[in-house]
Amino acid sequence: MAIITLLTDFGLQDEYVGVLKGVIYTINPSATLVDLSHHIAPQDIVQAAYTMKAAVDYFPQGTIHVCIVDPGVGSARSIVAALYAGHTFIAPDNGLLSPIWGSDCPEKIVRVHNQQLFLKQVSHTFHGRDIFAPVAAHLSLGVKIEELGSSLPLSKLTKLSLPQPRLKSDREIIGQVVSVDRFGNLITNIDASMINKLKADRAPEMVAIRIGNHYIEGLSLTYGQTDTGATVAVVGSRNCLEVAVNGDSAADMLNAGRGTSVRVSVMPST
Amino acid sequence: MAIITLLTDFGLQDEYVGVLKGVIYTINPSATLVDLSHHIAPQDIVQAAYTMKAAVDYFPQGTIHVCIVDPGVGSARSIVAALYAGHTFIAPDNGLLSPIWGSDCPEKIVRVHNQQLFLKQVSHTFHGRDIFAPVAAHLSLGVKIEELGSSLPLSKLTKLSLPQPRLKSDREIIGQVVSVDRFGNLITNIDASMINKLKADRAPEMVAIRIGNHYIEGLSLTYGQTDTGATVAVVGSRNCLEVAVNGDSAADMLNAGRGTSVRVSVMPST
Amino acid sequence: MAIITLLTDFGLQDEYVGVLKGVIYTINPSATLVDLSHHIAPQDIVQAAYTMKAAVDYFPQGTIHVCIVDPGVGSARSIVAALYAGHTFIAPDNGLLSPIWGSDCPEKIVRVHNQQLFLKQVSHTFHGRDIFAPVAAHLSLGVKIEELGSSLPLSKLTKLSLPQPRLKSDREIIGQVVSVDRFGNLITNIDASMINKLKADRAPEMVAIRIGNHYIEGLSLTYGQTDTGATVAVVGSRNCLEVAVNGDSAADMLNAGRGTSVRVSVMPST
Repeated sequence: MAIITLLTDFGLQDEYVGVLKGVIYTINPSATLVDLSHHIAPQDIVQAAYTMKAAVDYFPQGTIHVCIVDPGVGSARSIVAALYAGHTFIAPDNGLLSPIWGSDCPEKIVRVHNQQLFLKQVSHTFHGRDIFAPVAAHLSLGVKIEELGSSLPLSKLTKLSLPQPRLKSDREIIGQVVSVDRFGNLITNIDASMINKLKADRAPEMVAIRIGNHYIEGLSLTYGQTDTGATVAVVGSRNCLEVAVNGDSAADMLNAGRGTSVRVSVMPST
Repeated sequence: MAIITLLTDFGLQDEYVGVLKGVIYTINPSATLVDLSHHIAPQDIVQAAYTMKAAVDYFPQGTIHVCIVDPGVGSARSIVAALYAGHTFIAPDNGLLSPIWGSDCPEKIVRVHNQQLFLKQVSHTFHGRDIFAPVAAHLSLGVKIEELGSSLPLSKLTKLSLPQPRLKSDREIIGQVVSVDRFGNLITNIDASMINKLKADRAPEMVAIRIGNHYIEGLSLTYGQTDTGATVAVVGSRNCLEVAVNGDSAADMLNAGRGTSVRVSVMPST
Repeated sequence: MAIITLLTDFGLQDEYVGVLKGVIYTINPSATLVDLSHHIAPQDIVQAAYTMKAAVDYFPQGTIHVCIVDPGVGSARSIVAALYAGHTFIAPDNGLLSPIWGSDCPEKIVRVHNQQLFLKQVSHTFHGRDIFAPVAAHLSLGVKIEELGSSLPLSKLTKLSLPQPRLKSDREIIGQVVSVDRFGNLITNIDASMINKLKADRAPEMVAIRIGNHYIEGLSLTYGQTDTGATVAVVGSRNCLEVAVNGDSAADMLNAGRGTSVRVSVMPST
C-alpha cells in the first residue's frame, strides 16, 4: 500500500497531471496518489523545495515523493533519486531536494538511468510522464532504489542555495519572506528555535518584528488573537515566523512578498 | 472502506491539503479521500456551509466530513463533531454545520478534546493538520464519536444565521443570491417547494423573476432552453432557483452576486 | 479495480466535482478516480476533446472516461457511451468524443437511456451527478455497455469538426494553435509525422516556423535548448508542434492563442 506524492508546476488545467496518474496506475493499480501541489509557479524550484520540505514529515515512512519542476527537461541534466529518513524522492538534479536533508546526508543517492523502468518512448519534453511517473510506480511495487541507476555521491548533486537568516547581533535576526500562502500570510525563513534563542526567557511581548515600514510589537500565538485588520506575527505551521493580517492578506496590506526583509529584535534584558 | 471528505479554504497552491492527506494516510492507509472543495474564499463560513449542505446527500452513510474553515484557529473556540443522518461531521464550532440539520437535531454532538487522537504536537495555527485530520482518520478506523470528547447539547452549538427567503404576499417571494458558481450562475436561497407553493397549479410561464433591474418571464427547465445570451431562471442542482445566462456568466452580465435580491412573483389566478 | 477518469468544465470551487465522486463511491466504493481536468473553459467542447485525446493512451485498458462538457444539459441531446480500443467513454452527444477515434470506428456505441442505472431523481440541470456518475460507477462494477441503452451507428453520432492542418505545397504546412497550456506553450495541430514527411531527410535546422510576425529557424529538441527568453519550436508531449518561449509564456510574449495560424516550411532540397 504505497503512497506516491506528486509535486509539479503543471497546474490543473491541462491533461498533464491526469496523464502522470494514468501512467502510474497502469503500472501499479493499487498505488495511493496524493497531490502535494501542482500550482508551483512555472519552473520555480525554490518554491517547490519549500513546499516539499514543509510536507514530508507528515507522510508515513515508505512514501515516494515525485517532484517535477524541471526547467531543464530534455537537456543533459540528470534525474536523481534519494532515500532519506525512510522516504524516497525522485526529482531532476536541479537542487530541488537538497533542502530536505539540509546539512545531513541521504542514505542513498542514484542517478536514474535504467531505461527498462521508463516508458518505451521517452520524449524530450515530458519526462514527468515518460520517466518520473513510471519509475515512481515501479518503486511503489517494490523495485529498490539501487535498481534505478548508478550510485552518486552527495557532492555530485546540485545544491540549492536558499536565503538563510542571520544573527545581526545578539539582539537581532535578519531574515526574509520566502513564501506567500493562499491567505496572503508571509512565511519567513526565521524558525522558532532561532527566535527562542534570541528571546531567551523574555516574554513574547518583548519581541518586535519589522517588515518594510511596518512594525509589530510582540509575538502572537494565533492569527486571530488581535483585532480584525491588525498585523500579527506568529510561529506558523512550518514552525517559522509568519506575518499575517487578521482576516485579510498581509501580502496585499503590507505590499510584501518573497524576498521582503524581516527583522526580529528583542529588548535588552534588564 | 471509509470515505473522508475535505472541505477547506486552504486553496491548492500550498502544501496544506497534501499535508492533511499525509496525516490521514499515516493513520489509515486505506481511507478514501474526496476533496469537496478547497477553494472556499478565505474564512467564508457561509459559503462552506452552503457547499457542504449541497453535497452531503450524495455521499454514502458512514461518510466522515471534515470542514476546516476556521478563522478562530488557536483561539478558545471549540472543535465539534456531530452524527447526523448516518454521516459524521467535524468542524470548528463556528456555525458551519448548523445548516446541515437546519431545525432538526443531530443524533450526537461532542466537543472534541481527546488529545490521544491528535498529533503529538498541536500547533496554534494549523488545527487541520494537528487535530481535524488525525481525528477523522481515527473515526475512519472505527473510533466512535463518543470517544472524541464530551457530549454537548445542541443549544451550546454556534448557529449560523443564513439569509432566509420570505413570502411578501401570497403572490411574491423575496430571496437572495447566496452562491455564484463557476459558470457565473446565480444560486438563490429560494427552493423549489416554495416556488411550487406560490405557483400552485399555474403554468411555468406565469412565474416572473426580478433580479436587480432585470426581469425574467417564466421558469425554464434547462439553461439552454432559450437563445444564447438570454437570461433564464431554472430550478438548479441544489433544488433552488438559479438565474443563468445561456452560454455566459449571469454574475457578469447582470452585475449580480451574493446578496443580490431576487423576487419571484406569479400572476393572479383568474 | 476499475479506473474512472473525470473531465469536466465544473471547476473546483463548487461542490459539483465532489458530488460526482460521492455518487460514484456510493455505488462502487472501490473505484479509482482520476481527475483529468475540471478546468476546461465553460462549455468548451473542443478543448475537452483535445485534452481527452491527449490523455487516453496513458490509461490502462478497461478505463472508463467520463466527459461532462455539456452545454445542452437537459435538452433533447442524447448521452452516448462508446467502447474503443479497450476504453469506455461516456459523454453528451456533442462531438466531444469523435476526435478519439478520428476516422476509425468504435467497437460499440450506445445511446444511454437505461434509467435503472441513473439516480432515482434526474434533474434537468446536472446530468453529471444524476446520469453520468452513476452510469460510470455501474460500468466500473462490470455492467456491460450494451446494458446502458440501444445500439447506435457511428453515422448518428455528432462529429466535431476540428481545424485540420493542410499542405500548402510540398514545402509548406499551414496549421494553427489549438491549445495553450499552463506554461503558455502554444500547441498546434501539426503533428510530428506531418513535419517529418515535409522535412524528409533534411536537418532540423532546415525547418522554419512562422507564427504571426515571428519567425523561428530550426526545430529544437527541448524547451531549454536556447537562451532564456528565446522562442523555440519543439515537438511536444502531444506529439505535435509547439511554440514555446524558454522560461516564459509564448502566448504572452508572441500575443498568440487558439486559432493563431502557424506555418512550417522547409528549404528546397539541393
